[in-house]
Amino acid sequence: MQLIWMVPAAGLSGVVFALWLAWDVLRRDTGTDAMRDVSAMIFEGAMAFLKRQYRTIAMLALVTGVLIAVIVGAVSAGVKEIIRSDTGQVEYGATVVGHWREGLLTGIAFLVGAAASALAGFIGMYISVRSNARCASAATRSLKEAITVSLRGGAVSGFLVVSLSLLGVSSIFLTYSRLLGNPATIAPFLIVGFGFGASFVALFAQLGGGIYTKAADVGADLVGKVEAGIPEDDPRNAAVIADLVGDNVGDCAGRGADLFESMSAENIGAMILGVAIYTVTGKIEWIMFPLVLRSFGILATIVGLSSVPFFARDDGRQHPMTPLNYGYYIVSILSVVGLFIATRVMLSDVWYWFFGCGLIGIATGIAFVYITQYYTSGSWRPVQEIARASRTGPATNIIIGTAVGYETTAATAITIGLALVISFVLGSHADIANVPGFSSGVFGTAVATMGMLMSAAYILAMDTFGPITDNAGGITEMAGAPASARHITDSLDAVGNTTKALTKGYAVASAGLAAFLLFSAYLDKVKERLDIPLTQSLPIDLSNVDVFVGGLLGVMLVFLFSSLAIRAVGNTASAIIEEVRRQFREDPGIMAGTSRPDYARAVDITARASLRQMVAPGLLAVGMPVAVGLIFRFTRTEDSGWLAVSGLLMIGTIGGIIMATFLNNVGGAWDNAKKYIEAGKLTVESANPGETVVLGKGSDAHKAAVVGDTVGDPFKDTAGPSLHVLVKLLSTVTLVMAPLFIR
Amino acid sequence: MQLIWMVPAAGLSGVVFALWLAWDVLRRDTGTDAMRDVSAMIFEGAMAFLKRQYRTIAMLALVTGVLIAVIVGAVSAGVKEIIRSDTGQVEYGATVVGHWREGLLTGIAFLVGAAASALAGFIGMYISVRSNARCASAATRSLKEAITVSLRGGAVSGFLVVSLSLLGVSSIFLTYSRLLGNPATIAPFLIVGFGFGASFVALFAQLGGGIYTKAADVGADLVGKVEAGIPEDDPRNAAVIADLVGDNVGDCAGRGADLFESMSAENIGAMILGVAIYTVTGKIEWIMFPLVLRSFGILATIVGLSSVPFFARDDGRQHPMTPLNYGYYIVSILSVVGLFIATRVMLSDVWYWFFGCGLIGIATGIAFVYITQYYTSGSWRPVQEIARASRTGPATNIIIGTAVGYETTAATAITIGLALVISFVLGSHADIANVPGFSSGVFGTAVATMGMLMSAAYILAMDTFGPITDNAGGITEMAGAPASARHITDSLDAVGNTTKALTKGYAVASAGLAAFLLFSAYLDKVKERLDIPLTQSLPIDLSNVDVFVGGLLGVMLVFLFSSLAIRAVGNTASAIIEEVRRQFREDPGIMAGTSRPDYARAVDITARASLRQMVAPGLLAVGMPVAVGLIFRFTRTEDSGWLAVSGLLMIGTIGGIIMATFLNNVGGAWDNAKKYIEAGKLTVESANPGETVVLGKGSDAHKAAVVGDTVGDPFKDTAGPSLHVLVKLLSTVTLVMAPLFIR
Repeated sequence: MQLIWMVPAAGLSGVVFALWLAWDVLRRDTGTDAMRDVSAMIFEGAMAFLKRQYRTIAMLALVTGVLIAVIVGAVSAGVKEIIRSDTGQVEYGATVVGHWREGLLTGIAFLVGAAASALAGFIGMYISVRSNARCASAATRSLKEAITVSLRGGAVSGFLVVSLSLLGVSSIFLTYSRLLGNPATIAPFLIVGFGFGASFVALFAQLGGGIYTKAADVGADLVGKVEAGIPEDDPRNAAVIADLVGDNVGDCAGRGADLFESMSAENIGAMILGVAIYTVTGKIEWIMFPLVLRSFGILATIVGLSSVPFFARDDGRQHPMTPLNYGYYIVSILSVVGLFIATRVMLSDVWYWFFGCGLIGIATGIAFVYITQYYTSGSWRPVQEIARASRTGPATNIIIGTAVGYETTAATAITIGLALVISFVLGSHADIANVPGFSSGVFGTAVATMGMLMSAAYILAMDTFGPITDNAGGITEMAGAPASARHITDSLDAVGNTTKALTKGYAVASAGLAAFLLFSAYLDKVKERLDIPLTQSLPIDLSNVDVFVGGLLGVMLVFLFSSLAIRAVGNTASAIIEEVRRQFREDPGIMAGTSRPDYARAVDITARASLRQMVAPGLLAVGMPVAVGLIFRFTRTEDSGWLAVSGLLMIGTIGGIIMATFLNNVGGAWDNAKKYIEAGKLTVESANPGETVVLGKGSDAHKAAVVGDTVGDPFKDTAGPSLHVLVKLLSTVTLVMAPLFIR
Repeated sequence: MQLIWMVPAAGLSGVVFALWLAWDVLRRDTGTDAMRDVSAMIFEGAMAFLKRQYRTIAMLALVTGVLIAVIVGAVSAGVKEIIRSDTGQVEYGATVVGHWREGLLTGIAFLVGAAASALAGFIGMYISVRSNARCASAATRSLKEAITVSLRGGAVSGFLVVSLSLLGVSSIFLTYSRLLGNPATIAPFLIVGFGFGASFVALFAQLGGGIYTKAADVGADLVGKVEAGIPEDDPRNAAVIADLVGDNVGDCAGRGADLFESMSAENIGAMILGVAIYTVTGKIEWIMFPLVLRSFGILATIVGLSSVPFFARDDGRQHPMTPLNYGYYIVSILSVVGLFIATRVMLSDVWYWFFGCGLIGIATGIAFVYITQYYTSGSWRPVQEIARASRTGPATNIIIGTAVGYETTAATAITIGLALVISFVLGSHADIANVPGFSSGVFGTAVATMGMLMSAAYILAMDTFGPITDNAGGITEMAGAPASARHITDSLDAVGNTTKALTKGYAVASAGLAAFLLFSAYLDKVKERLDIPLTQSLPIDLSNVDVFVGGLLGVMLVFLFSSLAIRAVGNTASAIIEEVRRQFREDPGIMAGTSRPDYARAVDITARASLRQMVAPGLLAVGMPVAVGLIFRFTRTEDSGWLAVSGLLMIGTIGGIIMATFLNNVGGAWDNAKKYIEAGKLTVESANPGETVVLGKGSDAHKAAVVGDTVGDPFKDTAGPSLHVLVKLLSTVTLVMAPLFIR
């Protein structure tokens, strides 16, 4: 099979490139003693948190893995051979994998997926927290060097996530098909556990990290800026290290796990969709195509990322976002080339349809970059509108902010809708299988999703850029570095805020596209059990009461999950506030600057509180689809279980995408409305006609904007990102648990 | 046919009872000259607004009515006869109503529905604004008399809405079947325009009124309490009359129109569902049952409402809510009796299954009364949690409030889900039609909806009770009445807040139940066009890309519509603030109390601004389903138009119900958290151990709670209630426009 050698080549190249980047970052100067000191504290705190978090997650994952093996083993009917029948349909033959064996393999795949996701998150974050002091040190010299360090540090995480996902999926596929002697057609069904394992870890990583980061942020601000009247990142605030640790564990580890699972789950789902086409056409390429396309994505990203330093100029006039944008263009152009080669070589004479689908996906990724910027950057109407509303106080800031946030869902829904319909139509035109009633449209949406995810490593690198520069800023402040360095880290920090917002938009869009194909994969599993040909459609009737009520519960799950995530931040923040107050009260030397606060204790309390708080929403997300499936299965008709789950999955996904868009964008917009005012851009007419007064930092309008910013924190960094993961977890948990819902 | 005489009898009894109540209220003492003066200003303002609003709505409705006649006439294939085929299925025969005639009849039905809804709203509000001074005057004498006046004033609106809906639907049904000589089986399809007309008026009435009331409220508060530092309802504030006018036009006229359409649309939908069963069983009772059941509801409510004064005690210890609750119990018990008689007599030997369905509906209504109280009253955890969060400022008040608001959707979704599934199961058991594949389950959910709506007049009376007592409080304040009277109106006002919240919960629940049956009615229309037997199911496949994208756009519509509604309040409030500031600036005598502000001008400006602002969300709601249907019809496959609309309708409905629940409940909870603090119930530990300090009115916690309250205003009184209407409008607009979406 042509091009398949690309998969190990690109996967290993990605890892090697990541290692080179890590070596390049680690060999750099770590700055002054003070910088090293702060960085060491952040490192310790982050590692302590990760250790504790991974211990919790490992325990939960182990239990879940065993449960999966037992449940799937007990309730499944085994995996059936996939054959082409006399009527030309793709049907199921004899059972080729016994049900206990299926359970065991699924459970193992789950644990491997969970371990790979955790590993990628861990290594990425290790380098990220090692990069912050180096970035701070570089900032004392030049902007260009600081960008290079932070982007390379971030890219380590990006490349490891993407490469480990690719290597993980392809090697477990290889093991389960070649080594264990299963047909290539059924191996994709056996490895669905890998996707579930990845999303399981992602959910808890994102929840725990998201709660930690925002609780520390809100807590440090409320007790420091508001109560004690000391500036941000002031070393007298005991929560300041926890705040800096939070940037890493939330944005870096969380988003990495999020995209790891996006890619893995989408990859496996696309392979499942390829099975039917392979069975008809006899060309294994239809199953392997997703792996190859991603390989091209990695290579494109290596080139694009390496090009960034060449675009960076040190003349003080270039916006730091500019070289990053150029790099992204290069990645996009090379992705188009890779897409062309992969489709042309692998998808025989219908390649152009799927080339079109892939282009749609790449275009969707770019569209989201612009949509997110429009809604969350101070240069356009939405953020300015919120800033103006702040003049009449916090209430109007919140009201108009909410209105803007709700509005942003329109562009998201329309773009995702267009991408789905167009790629579906293009895919259907290919008409590969030539089976009456079968449509390759869904495979078209799968190619679009893959096209979009080709640039994932680059997007992740930009995302992790955020916490590194944010940390570098904090280190510069705490280590008393020169103002010029602080100026550089500030400008990088602002760029980091933008790139973090972009990544979230990208993650939402990929979740929206992937949902559709994962749902089809779930239906393929149901068809197996009900002995319905793979190439026949299995309608999920929306006017069926079970589907409708399942959908109602799905949207409700989105709201309830958001409620728990938001409240978790509030609860954890209270714990931090109590601790900082206690330290101020018990040691007056802290405020005077003569004694050093007990940072470690604050870090530890935040870690413990946030890990406690992540359990309830996490279990809700995993447990509710299973509970709904079981309740409907046992109290209603034969088909009610899997039908209710279908409704919950699909309609919950729609609700989740829209809600995540709102939460992410409104938070970003509130944040930047505050920054807009701080930059002195908000004015009012003064009493003297023709004159205007600037409402800057410290004005009532600014105070109102700070309220909005604080409200937006748990929205955009805890609930919103956790919802992307929830949406994908719904797909993977139902895919693995499908046999449980069928009577 | 047995019991059908009940319909005119109950409808006319309702009208006569309403007239008697109106006479009873109007003959009462109108208080002091000052009271009469204020009341006259409110009356003038309200009538001026209504006149202007109805002129706008009438124009829009006329244009829409003509468009409907033309469009349906042009694209429909006419209405076909409904017959029983040899296979036992209910099928379509020859065309019995030509397509132009169908268009004309539908257009006329639309205009009649619109006119009836407007009439009910107008008369109800006329009495309501005539009752306020009489309630204020009664409050100078006794609590019992004040309750009686305000409840009877509110009941005029309640009974007129319910009776006019019943009489309207039944007489247009009679006209279109008997007088015009159409079979009883197709008449329900001809009168769907009535429901659309009702929801069309309801949408604009609720939007315009909702924007007006909250813009006036927020504007008066911001400019009066915050800027000028004068108390609420202070006569020096030029916006104070506009604020009092707003209570009437938003809560009274808006909610009346909302429930008018609920009942009309649900009634027509249920009749459509009855057609298939009638054709099989030959018993016309299956079509007429909804009308009869509602007749029993009116009679039950007349008795229940008349009983309230007997439960009211004037000993100063009875909570004013208590007699209202007793009255509701009586209505519920009598409804059960009426349900028993109606099902027993009309639904032959399967009556007990539907009796069960109706019980489920009545129980759902009662459940929502308790759920709403739990989440929005200061006696329980949720509101107290928000009050406690106010201690750390407005940001935590908003964060925890949002978390609580999201949480409230769980109880709503589970209750509606249970009600739907159980009534569906009970309905299916009846197995009336005895046609293979046909289920009478949906008819079961229809009976549940009807059972719930039996108490609608009582709920509406309690709702309108709110603005009357609110107005009476304002009049008492402005007219300088004794403190004892103000005390009585204050306690009634608090009850009014609770009853207003209950009505919204009730409206959401009825929307949720009704959606399912209206969707089935829409599918019956589609089946007619596609020549699929009525008794056969027509699956709407959720994994179809058109359905999925339609659903994505449906949930997006809910968010975008909320955005526009919320922003409209902000924009209108700015207009009011400008005007009040201008009056303060240009006439210093106003602040000194020597000259009277120009109330009329403030009222007028508010009216014009809010009516301008209602157009965009209104047109979005009506236009988007039509646009989506047309775009998918013309750019995609044969079936894409009606499939995408199905997705938009059903999934948009789910999103709308959940979102409306959030907006209504979070607003109520924020409001009552503020009241909880004002009542002195929030405490903190003081520096001296064991001592506690009360954080009451004027504390920082109170200021934070005021921010939440202000944010909640447009949520709970503009966007939330408008969403209920949107949800039902989606059903009626798609029902009428169905032929347009089918190729």
